Amino acid sequence: MSEVKVNFELSKEYLSALELAIEEKNIAFIRDTMEGVNSADISAIFDEVDSEMAKYVLDILDNEIGAQIIEDLEHDTRTKFLEIFTPKEVADYVTEMDSDDAVDIINELPAKTREEVISEIIDPDTAAHIHELMRYDEDCAGGLMAKEMIAVNLNWDIVQTIEEIRRQRENVDRIYSVYVIDDKHRLLGKVSVKNILLANDNTHISEIYDTDVISVETYMDEVEVAAVMQKYGLDAVPVVNLQGKLVGRITIDDIIDVITEQADEDRQLMSGISSDIEEDDSVWVILKARLPWLIIGLVGGIVGAFVIRGFEEEIQTITGLALFIPLIMATGGNVGVQSSTLIVQSLATKSVFSDSLGKRLLKMVAIAMFTGLVLGSISFLFVFLYGEVRLGMVVAIALQAVILLASFTGTATPLILNRLGVNPALASGPFITTANDMLGITVYLLIANALL
Amino acid sequence: MSEVKVNFELSKEYLSALELAIEEKNIAFIRDTMEGVNSADISAIFDEVDSEMAKYVLDILDNEIGAQIIEDLEHDTRTKFLEIFTPKEVADYVTEMDSDDAVDIINELPAKTREEVISEIIDPDTAAHIHELMRYDEDCAGGLMAKEMIAVNLNWDIVQTIEEIRRQRENVDRIYSVYVIDDKHRLLGKVSVKNILLANDNTHISEIYDTDVISVETYMDEVEVAAVMQKYGLDAVPVVNLQGKLVGRITIDDIIDVITEQADEDRQLMSGISSDIEEDDSVWVILKARLPWLIIGLVGGIVGAFVIRGFEEEIQTITGLALFIPLIMATGGNVGVQSSTLIVQSLATKSVFSDSLGKRLLKMVAIAMFTGLVLGSISFLFVFLYGEVRLGMVVAIALQAVILLASFTGTATPLILNRLGVNPALASGPFITTANDMLGITVYLLIANALL
Repeated sequence: MSEVKVNFELSKEYLSALELAIEEKNIAFIRDTMEGVNSADISAIFDEVDSEMAKYVLDILDNEIGAQIIEDLEHDTRTKFLEIFTPKEVADYVTEMDSDDAVDIINELPAKTREEVISEIIDPDTAAHIHELMRYDEDCAGGLMAKEMIAVNLNWDIVQTIEEIRRQRENVDRIYSVYVIDDKHRLLGKVSVKNILLANDNTHISEIYDTDVISVETYMDEVEVAAVMQKYGLDAVPVVNLQGKLVGRITIDDIIDVITEQADEDRQLMSGISSDIEEDDSVWVILKARLPWLIIGLVGGIVGAFVIRGFEEEIQTITGLALFIPLIMATGGNVGVQSSTLIVQSLATKSVFSDSLGKRLLKMVAIAMFTGLVLGSISFLFVFLYGEVRLGMVVAIALQAVILLASFTGTATPLILNRLGVNPALASGPFITTANDMLGITVYLLIANALL
Repeated sequence: MSEVKVNFELSKEYLSALELAIEEKNIAFIRDTMEGVNSADISAIFDEVDSEMAKYVLDILDNEIGAQIIEDLEHDTRTKFLEIFTPKEVADYVTEMDSDDAVDIINELPAKTREEVISEIIDPDTAAHIHELMRYDEDCAGGLMAKEMIAVNLNWDIVQTIEEIRRQRENVDRIYSVYVIDDKHRLLGKVSVKNILLANDNTHISEIYDTDVISVETYMDEVEVAAVMQKYGLDAVPVVNLQGKLVGRITIDDIIDVITEQADEDRQLMSGISSDIEEDDSVWVILKARLPWLIIGLVGGIVGAFVIRGFEEEIQTITGLALFIPLIMATGGNVGVQSSTLIVQSLATKSVFSDSLGKRLLKMVAIAMFTGLVLGSISFLFVFLYGEVRLGMVVAIALQAVILLASFTGTATPLILNRLGVNPALASGPFITTANDMLGITVYLLIANALL
């Protein structure tokens, strides 16, 4: 391990030295310092230097390493970076990639460039694979799968199988399982590399293969594919078309991307950010993603103003009535977000026999009643000590009602959104908070009006 | 594929038939219907039936399948389930598991049972592995790793290597890479099964192994291990101790668990739920997790009441002043949550050279100023149409101030929490919302008091 730069540390000093070397066209320095460094670490360097400099370095390195570096770049860096490439250069790099990654990168290009790049791909297999994969929607199994895998005929023996692995050794980095197919290319089963290794040369695949293979169909949604792979603990899953023919393979690294993207999306929806932004995006990009929900919240606040205006007389005459608006609002918002988050979570795990709707509602009411009792008692005590017994009762009753309402909207909204095919995490965000704020004020003032 | 029950569908009908079969001790029915069904699907059945019934089925099935079923059970089901097992029975099942899973399950047992189970483990290697792994903290690489892996000496040839793989074939389900060590068991590199398969029998490992191996040390935090494996796209990573000796291996399935647990924890912190609960937990468990943050929010509301009380005179005399309390509160809360979420996200991705603190602050101010301008203008326009020019100005100015403050607390809080070693996602939850609500009201009323 000593001579290899694993766990490479990117320092400002190295970055300065590299920039100087690029200016001085010191190819030896660049080659020496990057020798043996993992492509993911070189990508991290490329995320920091300008595109022209990065391209100068890339041109020095081996094409295969170059392709890996391009794959590992952050999305925005790559888009800017590839703008200075000729279609021929892009074609050469994507030819080195697995077909799924190649398609992802081609899809990021402007529509016009895309065609030019594909026409520059020399290898006919690669071109055919890319054409095939581009037909699928990005979010389904077909859009996730790669064409690179090892498939062998049921009737082959170990020698033929090893020959096939040898033939594909450059294309298939990680084998996981060897898939077993019939003459019509239909998936029959799988066999592990370990078992191939331990078998005799004249053993036939039919003697050692495992028919218990879990597969997914091309049109299955990526979130479902992730769920299947997680449930069965799979490293790779074969993809079949409607005729049961083996058409590709999805590997676990793609599934990790699906899981993290889903988590990021949920987090953003929950915090009222409307598109995938990062802290180091430009002020303008950040504003565009943040303003919409803030404006919706503001409109909610304006509606709230209207509501309060309807009760202006009461507020002017009843001492202390306005004091508890924040308390009612905050509680309604918090209860609503908690309720919707629990529903979103249970929708995500999709237990087979989860509680029925009736039992769910009953439980929701029980939790809300008890919560209302606790919070209502605390606030009654406080208002009582403040010297207003009747107002204390109004606040306690209003809290109970608001908690019940917020639990209900928090439970119902994600279920409805999910039914409509919208990500239910939206319901844990400013949407529910704003709605519950307004509901809360209305209920509070109505109850005050009735009882005082 | 036709004869194997893959993608098994769990139905209420099957569940009823199974319960009947258990009552009637119809072993043939149970064996027949479960033959070829994936253990993950049988686990899903066990999550639905009572422990005694599940144990009856488990006793019929093969021990190895049984061990997999126990691994796949939901945490709560498993705890209840294993209560009716003798220590000897538990010992027999954990012996069939990978050592990391065995330790996880033993750690779930009551302290007393734990010792009894370990003392019942017959195989000395298994017992030694479990003892070794129990020394490590659950959240570090040592706590994640398994002892099962293939390690070969640098000087071995392919025949010796294949012999070692054969010897370990039952223990190591998935090989990923074969690790290369020296006589002192220090990690030197790795070699893929593919390359072993394609090499000649008399080739030595030293000729074909790859020195570019990324490893982690036993004490590395699990979140960091996950980051390393994601960055470098690894399926498995070898674990070394401080002397560089190979002591275990972490596989990608464990990392997926780390990633999903982290996402769940973040989501719960963001929604004010204080522990890992699910919708179908009991009312009491749910209440215990939900009430603390609601009470904190309520206390915030009580503080808000005090603040408003300090300005009671202004509220009684200035027409419309109370109307805009909700608007100010909602905006402050929303801006704070957005800001903190962005920081939490960028802490999670840990870009090497992210913006400096100064640049960050400058950008935060720019975004806040512009946001304030937009939201302030909308609300000014509204209050102006309502007929109150001066109040409109107060609302607009207060909004600007509140947005700036909320951006600042939203940015600073997660950074401080992170520095203190607390999960920064906490800052996107009720904490920030409550703090910003109170800040917002105070600033609004102070500005009104000064300008009106």
